[in-house]
Amino acid sequence: MSDGTQYSVGFVGIGLIGGSLARALKNSGFASSVSAWDRDADALEQALKLGIIDTASGSVAALMQTVNIAVLATPTIACESLIIDMLKEPGIAQCITDVASVKGDLYRRVVDAAPAGAAIYVPGHPIAGSERSGVAASDAALFEHHRVILTPDSNTDPLALGLVQKMWAAAGATVQCMGVEEHDNVLAATSHLPHVLAYALVDALAQSPIRDDIFRFAAGGFRDFTRIASSDPVMWRDISLANRDALLSSLDGFCDHLNTLRSFIAARDGEALENIFRSSKSARDEFARDLAMRERGET
Amino acid sequence: MSDGTQYSVGFVGIGLIGGSLARALKNSGFASSVSAWDRDADALEQALKLGIIDTASGSVAALMQTVNIAVLATPTIACESLIIDMLKEPGIAQCITDVASVKGDLYRRVVDAAPAGAAIYVPGHPIAGSERSGVAASDAALFEHHRVILTPDSNTDPLALGLVQKMWAAAGATVQCMGVEEHDNVLAATSHLPHVLAYALVDALAQSPIRDDIFRFAAGGFRDFTRIASSDPVMWRDISLANRDALLSSLDGFCDHLNTLRSFIAARDGEALENIFRSSKSARDEFARDLAMRERGET
Repeated sequence: MSDGTQYSVGFVGIGLIGGSLARALKNSGFASSVSAWDRDADALEQALKLGIIDTASGSVAALMQTVNIAVLATPTIACESLIIDMLKEPGIAQCITDVASVKGDLYRRVVDAAPAGAAIYVPGHPIAGSERSGVAASDAALFEHHRVILTPDSNTDPLALGLVQKMWAAAGATVQCMGVEEHDNVLAATSHLPHVLAYALVDALAQSPIRDDIFRFAAGGFRDFTRIASSDPVMWRDISLANRDALLSSLDGFCDHLNTLRSFIAARDGEALENIFRSSKSARDEFARDLAMRERGET
Repeated sequence: MSDGTQYSVGFVGIGLIGGSLARALKNSGFASSVSAWDRDADALEQALKLGIIDTASGSVAALMQTVNIAVLATPTIACESLIIDMLKEPGIAQCITDVASVKGDLYRRVVDAAPAGAAIYVPGHPIAGSERSGVAASDAALFEHHRVILTPDSNTDPLALGLVQKMWAAAGATVQCMGVEEHDNVLAATSHLPHVLAYALVDALAQSPIRDDIFRFAAGGFRDFTRIASSDPVMWRDISLANRDALLSSLDGFCDHLNTLRSFIAARDGEALENIFRSSKSARDEFARDLAMRERGET
């Protein structure tokens, strides 16, 4: 896969995702050196101590003077102003990418604010993560056999796109390109909506008069179902707002199906219920088989 | 825990739950012998071959002539008529119990139909299971460090109750008693509602125009969230109908909370969203900690 060329890679924000990618790119030999800037000096210090980065930069502008590839890996809310800074003063960077979970909202604002630099900006989103956060939780294998979506458009520099593809391949990920809107709709359905449902369920139960019994007798199925409600509240606040329109549309579609199920239960229509449960099980079983194959690297 | 007394235990229905309990009671020495009847002759044959049971009975009535403890472990839909048969001709049984996930509906019908035998009937529900089913998937450790809810009432024979408690303790479970209605409300909230939500979500996504992309890019969080949608459709049809009222009430409570979340997203109210996400995370983290301790046998 690799042609042996090495790149100087810089991270703006070095937490779970940035740290994991930095480790993977060092391990694979893709990165000749890794530098980072983070507004949290402790995170930078920790990344240096752990050997995840070679150099801590004093500012975004200073970082951009020294790197071939710049990766923005901050929380969603900080992305917009930082990526504009990066695009306005790209330094020697051949490509600039990010890892934000919502792409459309960000991309439209960035292109308006810094049209000149937009060509080397390749919006990206690795479909991988963890309930844990912070650079100490980073893991070189986080992206192995995982997918990364890139959302270039007709203005994107093909060389910049190629370089970002090569970087993610070096981290063990499979890269796929799609349109910005398609990305946001897919992520609303598979990730943002389930998070909202899990938060809403735990919220409803935590406020129930039988709360104590509920949590005392809930078991493994409930733990799996609500795992994503243990995710970072600030991150999910920002994602919910950034992908507001796609999320609301996905939520309304879900509620239509839920209301149909409700009406079948109310009407004691066992046949209709069983049909829905059966086709859902079949779709979910197929998905789980495909995902297991993907994780074993078989697809 | 055990006083060394051994009991002859009989199962009406020998699938995942019956088979797992049979294995556990043999391993612990609680059962001197295990017999079973099942309307599926193949399941009985398999249970004999695997050494899970010692004897296959030709009928429920024949089984009841030979056992001290009778356990009904069939799918929900078959429970009512079988438990009535068992209570009408209890043979030498000192107690009769079941493992159905919904208790109120069944109990009311059974007590009406066979009031004489109702005193030795101790309704039970082990909070343990698996997406797999059938006697071949049975596991002696299935109930270890899991909870079992019993729902006796003022008419229940204390000796029968004591014997059922002792049986579950021998299988490694922690037994707790509560009222029938409380049980059904707790289970609606922690198990039945999450199943309906998972089925509804997969149903909605499977019928989406971007279905292929959705399943291609869904990842581990989605797998956990939808795992319960891989459960047996017939079993969940029956549970949904048997616990209809508690389930609908739990579903409506959830929808109120979901609608509140929706309105905050629509209004871009980040602070209100964050507050809900934060308190949900805190409740869910606490639950997960408690469950982990329980599973390690620390509570």
